[in-house]
Amino acid sequence: LAIITIIGAGDMGSAMSVPARYNGHEVRLVGTHLDRDIIEHARETGAHPRLNRQLPVGAAFFQLEQLEEALTGAELVISGVSSFGVDWFLDEILPRLPEGLPVLSVTKGMLDMPDGSLKTFPELYEEANPGRAFCAIGGPCTSYEMMDGDQTTVCYCGRDMSVLRWMKSLLETPFYHVSVSADVRGLECAVAMKNAYALAVCLAVGLSEQRDGKLHYNSQAALFGQSVREMRKLLALAGGQDDNIVYGVGDLYVTVFGGRTRKIGSLLGKGVAFEEALSQLSGVTLESHVIASRTGRAVRRLIALGKAEAGDFPLLLHIDDIISNGAQVDIPWEKFVDRM
Amino acid sequence: LAIITIIGAGDMGSAMSVPARYNGHEVRLVGTHLDRDIIEHARETGAHPRLNRQLPVGAAFFQLEQLEEALTGAELVISGVSSFGVDWFLDEILPRLPEGLPVLSVTKGMLDMPDGSLKTFPELYEEANPGRAFCAIGGPCTSYEMMDGDQTTVCYCGRDMSVLRWMKSLLETPFYHVSVSADVRGLECAVAMKNAYALAVCLAVGLSEQRDGKLHYNSQAALFGQSVREMRKLLALAGGQDDNIVYGVGDLYVTVFGGRTRKIGSLLGKGVAFEEALSQLSGVTLESHVIASRTGRAVRRLIALGKAEAGDFPLLLHIDDIISNGAQVDIPWEKFVDRM
Repeated sequence: LAIITIIGAGDMGSAMSVPARYNGHEVRLVGTHLDRDIIEHARETGAHPRLNRQLPVGAAFFQLEQLEEALTGAELVISGVSSFGVDWFLDEILPRLPEGLPVLSVTKGMLDMPDGSLKTFPELYEEANPGRAFCAIGGPCTSYEMMDGDQTTVCYCGRDMSVLRWMKSLLETPFYHVSVSADVRGLECAVAMKNAYALAVCLAVGLSEQRDGKLHYNSQAALFGQSVREMRKLLALAGGQDDNIVYGVGDLYVTVFGGRTRKIGSLLGKGVAFEEALSQLSGVTLESHVIASRTGRAVRRLIALGKAEAGDFPLLLHIDDIISNGAQVDIPWEKFVDRM
Repeated sequence: LAIITIIGAGDMGSAMSVPARYNGHEVRLVGTHLDRDIIEHARETGAHPRLNRQLPVGAAFFQLEQLEEALTGAELVISGVSSFGVDWFLDEILPRLPEGLPVLSVTKGMLDMPDGSLKTFPELYEEANPGRAFCAIGGPCTSYEMMDGDQTTVCYCGRDMSVLRWMKSLLETPFYHVSVSADVRGLECAVAMKNAYALAVCLAVGLSEQRDGKLHYNSQAALFGQSVREMRKLLALAGGQDDNIVYGVGDLYVTVFGGRTRKIGSLLGKGVAFEEALSQLSGVTLESHVIASRTGRAVRRLIALGKAEAGDFPLLLHIDDIISNGAQVDIPWEKFVDRM
């Protein structure tokens, strides 16, 4: 049994306490400066206020000032920050972690570099803090279903397979199934992209709801298929292998039916302008449009450099146009047809 | 403008009259011996009784005895039969088609051969009737949404690209988008398999409905991702290229949300035995379990011959066990994890 310290008491970070406690580990959940109320509430009631569920019995809750205490004797750190918290984790947390303590991150997303390349968070962390093992989780997993013990499959990626297998041994349960992969770029790219493309698939949800109030599936499926086609091309551009696309596909599926990304995609599909759609969702963190515009920017750079073809990414470029340039929704169906 | 004769007035065959008439072609819809009432009804009301929609103005309706008349001057035949009608089409229709008249088939499915290989219907037809062009349609397209003019993307496959481009030019519309591919095995395998795997994904629908009456998505997404993983392996075994997997993925998506396959998968997921589930659906053609057991049989043969590994197809083998051997649903989640 191990001591596992989770930093970030958002939905996914908090949910990771479930498999960890299921396996009997000592779990310490540390809130960021944004999570003060969550930790307070958890201490008083044992529940997570946003997930609206009991946290597992035996988990201990810490405010950020108690980080040192929460790290004493820890064998694994789980980073529960969202992509908006990556810089904070880099600047404020990494320097305070004991040497050699490995990190498993739930954060999904990538950074676009000036040369058009995309960088994964494990790569970013490793550059800042060489010598520490950084691994990351990808795959279709909503936090509240995981807390309810629903059957869930994920993949842990990282450079070192023995570290990955050890993390898997700590956290795998009869309902939380863990693959491991050394293809960090493949997995991280596949699961980051799904945020942008889930938003795209949900344009069709909004379009059909607007039309007759019903759900239609031919158009959703057309966008789903085109998403997978473009995600595979992005994976190749990012230097990933093709096999981890299955986690991106599963993650795309779960995100299309998830709350916030579906909501904004549907609003856009109904013709609501992006800024207005965002304001209707105020108060919730929305990673999908950030990753969409990052990826759009990266792909536009690659196109300008002659390293990618615009014709390979009509859906992504349209999403980016909607988000970054205020374009109206006008899905380029005819561009999804193989050119020949 | 061309004369297009559709043989088989089931849902998809009849729906093909919509893009054909949209483009102004002369459309002749011929019922099989099973479609007598449909043709009768269409003549009286202009509507399709099962699709519950008007057929396009100007389409002409023929009973099977009038086949010769319906074929006079025809430039393209569309076969609208289901996979259960393939033998009938081979034996009764092919010998009566004018020499050289090309055939475009809506039928999805494959046949399992004694050596464990899978054969596509275009290949089967070509062997029986060499010298005629046989093409087939794959991709996510439900007939009723297509009739309503929903945005739909499909792929036509066949040996001869110029024939495919000609068929595409006849039938493509602003709402019905057609790619073409010479990878017959890749496309046909991808879209045939989706029937079996849609049934598999819907096990999770039934399991979660049984549990608390609600839909959960982690488990559906896990099965969806595993389905795509196995479909890619089957595609490779069938000698297809990997790119047409996107049509299989789109088709899987649309089928998961379609009527009959979702219904039987959900029933099985709720613990209803296969025979009982079938009888609850009596009266409807159900291709999903036929293709599932065919593919299961083919894969078991390939495993016995040392050409495939059981560990690559845990989901398909479980579905086949449920259907062919009366096994209880017990999804082998732990087998979806990469072995290493």
